[in-house]
Amino acid sequence: MGVLSEGLTHVLILVASLVGIGFALLQWFLVSKVRVSVESGNGYSDRLIGEEEEGVDNLDVSLKCAEIQNAISVGATSFLYTEYRYLCIFMGVFGAIIFLFLGSVQGFSTKSEPCTYSKGNLCKPALANAIFSTIAFLLGALTSVLSGFLGMKIATYANARTTLQARKGVGKAFITAFRSGAVMGFLLSANGLLVLYVSINLFKLYYGDDWEGLYESITGYGLGGSSMALFGRVGGGIYTKAADVGADLVGKVERNIPEDDPRNPAVIADNVGDNVGDIAGMGSDLFGSYAESSCAALFVASISQFGVVHDYTAMSYPLIISAMGIVVCLITTLFATDLFEIKNVSEIEPSLKRQLVISTILMTAGIAMVSFLALPSEFTLYDFGTDKLVKNWHLFFCVSIGLWAGLVIGFTTEYYTSNAYSPVQDVADSCRTGAATNVIFGLALGYKSVIIPIFSIAIAIYVSFSMAAMYGIAMAALGMLSTISTGLAIDAYGPISDNAGGIAEMAGMSHKIRERTDALDAAGNTTAAIGKGFAIGSAALVSLALFGAFVSRAGIKAVDVLTPKVFIGLIVGAMLPYWFSAMTMKSVGSAALKMVEEVRRQFNTIPGLMEGRAKPDYTNCVKISTDASLREMIPPGALVMLTPLIAGTFFGVETLAGVLAGSLVSGVQVAISASNTGGAWDNAKKYIEAGASEHAKSLGPKGSDPHKAAVIGDTIGDPLKDTSGPSLNILIKLMAVESLVFAPFFAAHGGLLFKLL
Amino acid sequence: MGVLSEGLTHVLILVASLVGIGFALLQWFLVSKVRVSVESGNGYSDRLIGEEEEGVDNLDVSLKCAEIQNAISVGATSFLYTEYRYLCIFMGVFGAIIFLFLGSVQGFSTKSEPCTYSKGNLCKPALANAIFSTIAFLLGALTSVLSGFLGMKIATYANARTTLQARKGVGKAFITAFRSGAVMGFLLSANGLLVLYVSINLFKLYYGDDWEGLYESITGYGLGGSSMALFGRVGGGIYTKAADVGADLVGKVERNIPEDDPRNPAVIADNVGDNVGDIAGMGSDLFGSYAESSCAALFVASISQFGVVHDYTAMSYPLIISAMGIVVCLITTLFATDLFEIKNVSEIEPSLKRQLVISTILMTAGIAMVSFLALPSEFTLYDFGTDKLVKNWHLFFCVSIGLWAGLVIGFTTEYYTSNAYSPVQDVADSCRTGAATNVIFGLALGYKSVIIPIFSIAIAIYVSFSMAAMYGIAMAALGMLSTISTGLAIDAYGPISDNAGGIAEMAGMSHKIRERTDALDAAGNTTAAIGKGFAIGSAALVSLALFGAFVSRAGIKAVDVLTPKVFIGLIVGAMLPYWFSAMTMKSVGSAALKMVEEVRRQFNTIPGLMEGRAKPDYTNCVKISTDASLREMIPPGALVMLTPLIAGTFFGVETLAGVLAGSLVSGVQVAISASNTGGAWDNAKKYIEAGASEHAKSLGPKGSDPHKAAVIGDTIGDPLKDTSGPSLNILIKLMAVESLVFAPFFAAHGGLLFKLL
Repeated sequence: MGVLSEGLTHVLILVASLVGIGFALLQWFLVSKVRVSVESGNGYSDRLIGEEEEGVDNLDVSLKCAEIQNAISVGATSFLYTEYRYLCIFMGVFGAIIFLFLGSVQGFSTKSEPCTYSKGNLCKPALANAIFSTIAFLLGALTSVLSGFLGMKIATYANARTTLQARKGVGKAFITAFRSGAVMGFLLSANGLLVLYVSINLFKLYYGDDWEGLYESITGYGLGGSSMALFGRVGGGIYTKAADVGADLVGKVERNIPEDDPRNPAVIADNVGDNVGDIAGMGSDLFGSYAESSCAALFVASISQFGVVHDYTAMSYPLIISAMGIVVCLITTLFATDLFEIKNVSEIEPSLKRQLVISTILMTAGIAMVSFLALPSEFTLYDFGTDKLVKNWHLFFCVSIGLWAGLVIGFTTEYYTSNAYSPVQDVADSCRTGAATNVIFGLALGYKSVIIPIFSIAIAIYVSFSMAAMYGIAMAALGMLSTISTGLAIDAYGPISDNAGGIAEMAGMSHKIRERTDALDAAGNTTAAIGKGFAIGSAALVSLALFGAFVSRAGIKAVDVLTPKVFIGLIVGAMLPYWFSAMTMKSVGSAALKMVEEVRRQFNTIPGLMEGRAKPDYTNCVKISTDASLREMIPPGALVMLTPLIAGTFFGVETLAGVLAGSLVSGVQVAISASNTGGAWDNAKKYIEAGASEHAKSLGPKGSDPHKAAVIGDTIGDPLKDTSGPSLNILIKLMAVESLVFAPFFAAHGGLLFKLL
Repeated sequence: MGVLSEGLTHVLILVASLVGIGFALLQWFLVSKVRVSVESGNGYSDRLIGEEEEGVDNLDVSLKCAEIQNAISVGATSFLYTEYRYLCIFMGVFGAIIFLFLGSVQGFSTKSEPCTYSKGNLCKPALANAIFSTIAFLLGALTSVLSGFLGMKIATYANARTTLQARKGVGKAFITAFRSGAVMGFLLSANGLLVLYVSINLFKLYYGDDWEGLYESITGYGLGGSSMALFGRVGGGIYTKAADVGADLVGKVERNIPEDDPRNPAVIADNVGDNVGDIAGMGSDLFGSYAESSCAALFVASISQFGVVHDYTAMSYPLIISAMGIVVCLITTLFATDLFEIKNVSEIEPSLKRQLVISTILMTAGIAMVSFLALPSEFTLYDFGTDKLVKNWHLFFCVSIGLWAGLVIGFTTEYYTSNAYSPVQDVADSCRTGAATNVIFGLALGYKSVIIPIFSIAIAIYVSFSMAAMYGIAMAALGMLSTISTGLAIDAYGPISDNAGGIAEMAGMSHKIRERTDALDAAGNTTAAIGKGFAIGSAALVSLALFGAFVSRAGIKAVDVLTPKVFIGLIVGAMLPYWFSAMTMKSVGSAALKMVEEVRRQFNTIPGLMEGRAKPDYTNCVKISTDASLREMIPPGALVMLTPLIAGTFFGVETLAGVLAGSLVSGVQVAISASNTGGAWDNAKKYIEAGASEHAKSLGPKGSDPHKAAVIGDTIGDPLKDTSGPSLNILIKLMAVESLVFAPFFAAHGGLLFKLL
């Protein structure tokens, strides 16, 4: 047994999650001190006057900001409400499917059965698993929705405040944006931990000593989290990019008006999109990864020694790691908000990167502490039918290697997507000969950027797999996600700054303010790419862990590529990311075409719009994005949700295992290359626009031929980096967790087609 | 035993290959009857005069054609000679590596050893395997080079002849181009079969009854064929696309001059490129597939009942199938050249497609005949350590399903890349909103086009794998390639017509002639895409067969995804196609940039060039393409050739098996989507240019904004469809055959790193 007592374990997890929530609320309070509307102002507005730009009416600007913020917030809220209404139906239907499929495993019998792993004991009936899996699924889904929604709320609450603070200086603006990101990061991680902890303990009231059944049903939590994330990512991704592409194609390319110009009818939809896609979608996504890796680790632990001998503290190791992560991130955040002050634009990016490094170093110590306190010095773990002897320091290595692999992936992503380095500069340079070479170089960059992340993931997998079998992989994934609060804070910071810039433009603020928000935004672009790198890397590990858990639960002893059933699964699985991307890209393309037509129509039919004398009809564009995203998220969603059910039911668990492995190894590549290609094009364009070096100046200015070529690349990259790329990591995770939840059904009734033949 | 006697088997194979060669020479003779230069003309020119266009001097045009053809031919020949000089060095070095690695397995001992599979017998020493594998490697390499070279020769011999015949009518031109393609198709398949047959029988003089050793060393033939194909494809691909992209970017986009305009300095390089890339590269590629699938099948057969009981006829089943293929294709060709006549432009594409259907139907009957005559009605095949009982009709199904899967892939490719159907028309339509939406739609189309081919391949694999284990897969691959003569004829027809159009433009022929060659070329574009579909589909089956042979030879019993060694191989293997594509795309991009600068320089510095008063400096552009392709083909070549050696030597056979499976399932997707995306963009552009429907007219004409957007897409597609896409199928095949050849070494000395840890 480890040093930590069971009681202390309870206290630790509870306290950490409550501290996390409290810290998030404190940050929210600090952000709320920036008043947006001057009418309700009480002194803050006075202080602003001295520093603000001349010739612009302060009251007017502040009112305008409040108005725009309100429009964005209303648009985002109404979209999410509509989306959630659809998702409610989905939750109901899919909850019923879970109940029926799992209940049918033993014909809805209410009799207890002998346990599978704790030999000689009696376990709860399959019907209980059906009921509790369904409940866990609904809880996961609700927590996911809540995470996304709260993130969106704080983001739309903070964007105008960031703009206003930008008048006082870049440092103040940075802190406002970063604090708001932190609200989301901490709320999500603490909530996720708390709900999981409470669910486990409530389920225990029924399950008692049947931990095998308890943690089996808890896996539904991961499924719920990720299925909501899928729709959030896909729907939000289509929404934001339809608006963005549509706005850019007419505004920037045809009409030659700047980004976020209030005359552009799609501009509000574009800003709403940032919040529902990048913020709510990303939040749900990472919450899903977190929930799934926890569930995968808990499931494997429950059928290993920890579960069999009922060592509660060791069993809760994944939760304690997450609790430690919250504490570590809390300390890390203080470095950005209180210990250092940003005085200069050039300090922004290093400061954000420093956050990653600090949290990683501190967390390594934290992992060591937890591993030595919570785990027995030696124990066995389930390893596909055999028991593997593992030492506590092995697990320290497993979790740490995941954590550090995440950092390597993050920095590689930065290297390939930041315009401070040669890869993006080469892409920018290729714009000299037009859009075609820009696209060729951009695609090549994306392909190349896959190499180092894949080697990092491979090393992490090899080490953790060799040391602690599938439990090691799950813990490596959780290690990568242990600093999720900081990761999300950095990540949410990006769209908030992006919106802040948009508001500055729309409110007619001076060029100086726009420059500051642009600098915040440029750093945000890179950190967003880093965040996506993390999301994909962790998704790869998570889905491998889930895959392992699935295989264990389905009772497969080996997934041999050299059997026809597995191989056809593998090659079809490797195809799925392409099918999925085809759907999402086409959806964005078609929705963007509609948006373009609407924007053109407004420019052509509303007199005085180009001259700024008339207001465009923003709501029509919002409606186009909303309709398109809700309609178009269904086919890709169905592809992901139905594939495991069809493969498992008709072709059996071996083929399904092949599908999971294939989609994992192929999807990771597509996702990384798509994200990085898109990020690189975006920053190549920004590089030319900023004109910070002699080389960049020779390509610019805005409106030059190379710049136009760069804009085309940026537009192509939009659906790649914000719709299909980031949705793919949900595809691979979700199919794996769904297979895991339905494994008992597939094992009992699967493979109908081969049985018939 | 089957019905066919051993003697008759010899006769059959020999006669078929000689008939194939004879038929090819006959076609060549028929093509040669069209005289290019009037000076040596003897009547043909007289007959032409009546039908030719007015106002253009016949003598002058004919002389010009001869001159251009000569320039193309000289350029292509000199490039290939230079390339082959490099390849000679490579062949020497790699031959030495094969000898040293394989010789070292038993420490260069000359003593006979007990056989691995024919228990109780003595087999030849490992040193013999080293020597004969090296010889087979060199033979395969030489045959591959010869195939490519002869193809290029006939193509450059035929292009001006096709142009001249176009003056007589589209039917005559079609027959000239098609006959020339047939020369290449039949020479390649018949030569490949003959050399393989002769080698086996010569090797037998030494090996005698040790068939295990004999067919083990014969696998070197496949390795030689494919390694030459790799460099041919990559080098040729970079050559042709650097020239093409460079010519288009300046000529079409900047200077607004038509394609193939003689004022464009890169125009000769572009035409040379078609011959060295599409013709010589494709020839080597398909020869490689053919050689490899034969070797894989022969190897598995040699360690099965056929090899053990020395049933020569059954053993030669793969060769007899190929022999039958030559006969079937010969009959099929007559349908195009003699039985039907093309009178109208609209009949071209159906006629080519009819070739595929006729050859497939006839071949199905041929396969049935061969299967029932050459095979015993029941026999056993090696199946990873066990013996699998197989009936002769099982093999009929294996070969046939490969053949028909090829047809399905071909027609799917056609559907997604021909502008007669909605997918390409949608892409063309998206050009309305600019290049960005065109690229988004094109990428989505490519991704989507993967679905049906992958399901076809999966079904073919499942059926043949279940019926006849790895031998079944190898035979399915050979089935897909059995109509290779027809496939190649159709395929080579494309670049020949393309060149014919170029020559018409350069020789200043009238618009009417150019329209005819354009129609020939448009059909060629689709058939080229079909050919690539075949190449990729067969490569997938071939590499799986080789993979299975490798696993058998390396003595692995299972490739379990759930072991860390295999899984890291799988994920890294899935990454390799991306790494490889990054290299080749970047190479094309950089070379194209250089070409653009040179072309711009010539336009700017040569007075009177734009007005047609001065001649451009073609040779400089040829030199840029040559240098770039020779320099840039080395890194991707090294990646492919070194990966199996490094993985096998340092990480062992399990990891290598993972790498092969990963690169196979991921590479197929990348290859198909890249080829089809590029093909679709090309034809979307042609669709707008042709303006054959109301819809197409609304997008055109040449020079309109949608057309400019389409040109950008076409340019991006060039390296995708002609460089990285088609090279990828060589990547997956070559790594597999290399692993197979080096398997004894890896099994004996591999996995150094894990042994050290």
